[in-house]
Amino acid sequence: MELVAESIDIGTRAPTVLLNEADAAELGVHALERIQLRRDGKTTIGIVELTDELIPEGTLGVTRRLGHIDGTVTVSVAPQPNSVYYIRKKLDDIELERRELECIVRDIYEERLADIELGAYVSAMYTNGLSMEETMHLTSCMANIGETISWDDEIIADKHSIGGVAGNRITPILVPIVAAAGVKIPKTSSRAVTSASGTADTMEVLCDVEFSIGEIREIVETTGGCLVWGGAVNLSPVDDQIIRAETPLSLDPVGQLIASVLSKKKSAGSTHIVIDIPYGEGAKVESLAEARELAEDFNRVSDHLEMTTECAITNGSAPVGTAIGPVFEAREVLATLDGDGPNDLRLKAIRLADLLFESVGVDADAEELLDSGAADATFREILAAQNGDPGVEIADLSPGRHTQPVHADRDGVVTHINNRLVNEVARRAGAPKDHGAGLKLHRGVGETTTTDELLATVHAESTDKLADAVALLERVEMIRVRHPDEALVERI
Amino acid sequence: MELVAESIDIGTRAPTVLLNEADAAELGVHALERIQLRRDGKTTIGIVELTDELIPEGTLGVTRRLGHIDGTVTVSVAPQPNSVYYIRKKLDDIELERRELECIVRDIYEERLADIELGAYVSAMYTNGLSMEETMHLTSCMANIGETISWDDEIIADKHSIGGVAGNRITPILVPIVAAAGVKIPKTSSRAVTSASGTADTMEVLCDVEFSIGEIREIVETTGGCLVWGGAVNLSPVDDQIIRAETPLSLDPVGQLIASVLSKKKSAGSTHIVIDIPYGEGAKVESLAEARELAEDFNRVSDHLEMTTECAITNGSAPVGTAIGPVFEAREVLATLDGDGPNDLRLKAIRLADLLFESVGVDADAEELLDSGAADATFREILAAQNGDPGVEIADLSPGRHTQPVHADRDGVVTHINNRLVNEVARRAGAPKDHGAGLKLHRGVGETTTTDELLATVHAESTDKLADAVALLERVEMIRVRHPDEALVERI
Repeated sequence: MELVAESIDIGTRAPTVLLNEADAAELGVHALERIQLRRDGKTTIGIVELTDELIPEGTLGVTRRLGHIDGTVTVSVAPQPNSVYYIRKKLDDIELERRELECIVRDIYEERLADIELGAYVSAMYTNGLSMEETMHLTSCMANIGETISWDDEIIADKHSIGGVAGNRITPILVPIVAAAGVKIPKTSSRAVTSASGTADTMEVLCDVEFSIGEIREIVETTGGCLVWGGAVNLSPVDDQIIRAETPLSLDPVGQLIASVLSKKKSAGSTHIVIDIPYGEGAKVESLAEARELAEDFNRVSDHLEMTTECAITNGSAPVGTAIGPVFEAREVLATLDGDGPNDLRLKAIRLADLLFESVGVDADAEELLDSGAADATFREILAAQNGDPGVEIADLSPGRHTQPVHADRDGVVTHINNRLVNEVARRAGAPKDHGAGLKLHRGVGETTTTDELLATVHAESTDKLADAVALLERVEMIRVRHPDEALVERI
Repeated sequence: MELVAESIDIGTRAPTVLLNEADAAELGVHALERIQLRRDGKTTIGIVELTDELIPEGTLGVTRRLGHIDGTVTVSVAPQPNSVYYIRKKLDDIELERRELECIVRDIYEERLADIELGAYVSAMYTNGLSMEETMHLTSCMANIGETISWDDEIIADKHSIGGVAGNRITPILVPIVAAAGVKIPKTSSRAVTSASGTADTMEVLCDVEFSIGEIREIVETTGGCLVWGGAVNLSPVDDQIIRAETPLSLDPVGQLIASVLSKKKSAGSTHIVIDIPYGEGAKVESLAEARELAEDFNRVSDHLEMTTECAITNGSAPVGTAIGPVFEAREVLATLDGDGPNDLRLKAIRLADLLFESVGVDADAEELLDSGAADATFREILAAQNGDPGVEIADLSPGRHTQPVHADRDGVVTHINNRLVNEVARRAGAPKDHGAGLKLHRGVGETTTTDELLATVHAESTDKLADAVALLERVEMIRVRHPDEALVERI
């Protein structure tokens, strides 16, 4: 059937096309089915929604998501994507072969899968897990799709944290330290999956994070590093689709995590990577044994892709730093680069940077680069190169104006701050999408407190979201305070 | 925030609302997030899509799916539904408690879940399975939501097949047999999940299938039975949402299946039920042991709900009858009621009806009711009561006009007809949504054939869908023909 395509101003998530019901009946398609649009030898898949009046017969309404299509298009019923069979196979807990994973990755890339199917994919990977073979295949399939960057330099450094620890904004401190030593570090970061803020969300408070590959190259040639969002460039583009599906359910299966991280590093042309694996109560990885296993898997998959990876197993049982949420974390990054941040954040950034220097074989001292102001200067050069204000000060950044204090309910010592709950409270308060939403921690683990003393303050940009965060806070113990005499964590 | 709601003519699957980007920014919501609309004390959840021009600032575009809402509404960010945590818990393979299942069922009913989350729900239930406790709880939660029918009669008969066998259109033959014996049988059926046609799809060829509870009561009081679509009435409405999510992936987890069937029966006021459990190669249940286990589970859950269930374990290794797809099956039903259908279909309907007579303690003979024309007369009364043509003849029903013959590739005997592939070919050809799509089988299992003899004909209403079916046929062996001397099914 031939229809005349016409742009329609609706921003949908799916590649939606609007069909008049009469045309749909003739074509034999129903709402949510897929159709193929062919024009000038190019085929696009659209997902059908129906209308009586908005689109006249003979016309096809093309929403923004599909890009610009106009003129006459040949429309036909699209076949069901093969990857649906492979997703079902994985739900049956049968190992997938390389070509099957390739097909799934390709179909996700080309947006052939409906949300129900994407939900099933992340569920299958989460609940049945990926084998080492599957992880290796998935990683290289994901790296092979989309653009890649190649560099003239022999050494391209990179860094990643598997996340799960609230605060922990190491990257914006480490990148300028490394760049200041003359080692190129073109860092692309994700947005938050299950945490309150990803590096890209935090950096967005200070500067732009969406750049083309050409622009990234220019920023890195000028400053030695960059702090951009990986999703804006077409490096491992499938990853962002998968993250979108994982987010509502807070799923983050191990094999998928490795594939996400290493496919991006491979596409970005990285040669030496340090990976931060925090472990402990409330972190993504609970035990040291698990952390070691994950580190070995990272090393094995990156060997397979011919990259050098150093894994740093770190303490992840409590937040690092005192700030959670994009604006709060940006403030703490500025403070640390200025010599004034929390000690745990500062020391961790220094230690990871030194590990990277050791791995690439460069004689540099991270502490010196930080204390001399060299890292701060480089950071502000990066800000300027990324269209931010290089003179930005902490006072310029305002947290959300709706607040809720969290008080101690007894005298005692802070024995635990639950990362998952801290992240969840901050997310309910609106983070990371609302930049000003988040938490400021006023007491750390091991510090003493008295009844009614302020332990933390939750900030939000809207009263609804603040109420949502408060509703959670009332049900759970985000910050655990115990009398020093109480030996038990809990009694069951 | 207060916005003026305005209907917009788009038929979406999700309860979509269109927001101007400026309003969305002020509200702090993004595409695909949920907002609450409050008006006259009533709260509705909408899923956000954004527009620049289609909807002016201060206005809220309400799509058809949300029903009629206009005037000023109070709009706020909706909290994340709690059931998301329970879905994740089930993905972690932890048994759900009654209140957690209740919460999931309630959120599905109120359409609080996005498609990604619904996809994860059916995936979790499929891959990790449901315990007997979970199945009982889920069944009664599903039965408790929506409307119920109560009858003055002490005995209300019902019938169900777990499906998976192509053809097998027993219900439209059994219902008029039972009704003709004076036993009330208000049959509600599903549409197809993984098969080429459900009873509701087949009946829709002959008459209306969507009626209110008041209308169903009237049809049953007049004719003794009905053959309607369960999804049109609000009996266990959650089931249809779940089926919609299962369909694209052809998932149908056992516990969910039992809950689907029995929650509908309970809501419909049924007291005595016969359940057809076909088993064998290519059926939903592969082994006799599995079929027995399922039968016991059905009995246990229906005891819990105070209903009497008889399970009939039947041969499900090949299609029953010769017709697959709505139009084809409707033709075969008419033929069988007229004394002229395939023998296997006729005998199975008779046997299941007799089992039901035995269970309710009524002295009636199914074969006699069929051969005397009493069942046919009752069927046509039901057609008339459901706005169909009581004088309909087989010649009035036309299969899809685009056809593809399937020929034998050798001399031999038909040793197997694969139900799953028959259903899949018919579905690719457009069944059940395209009524005329499907297959006619010309040879049954055990019959001899010669090279190039016609084994089956595939019909479709569109050439695209026919091509899609043919592509599958070329890859698989839907009908297995072997020389009588060949002892092996396959050599590996």
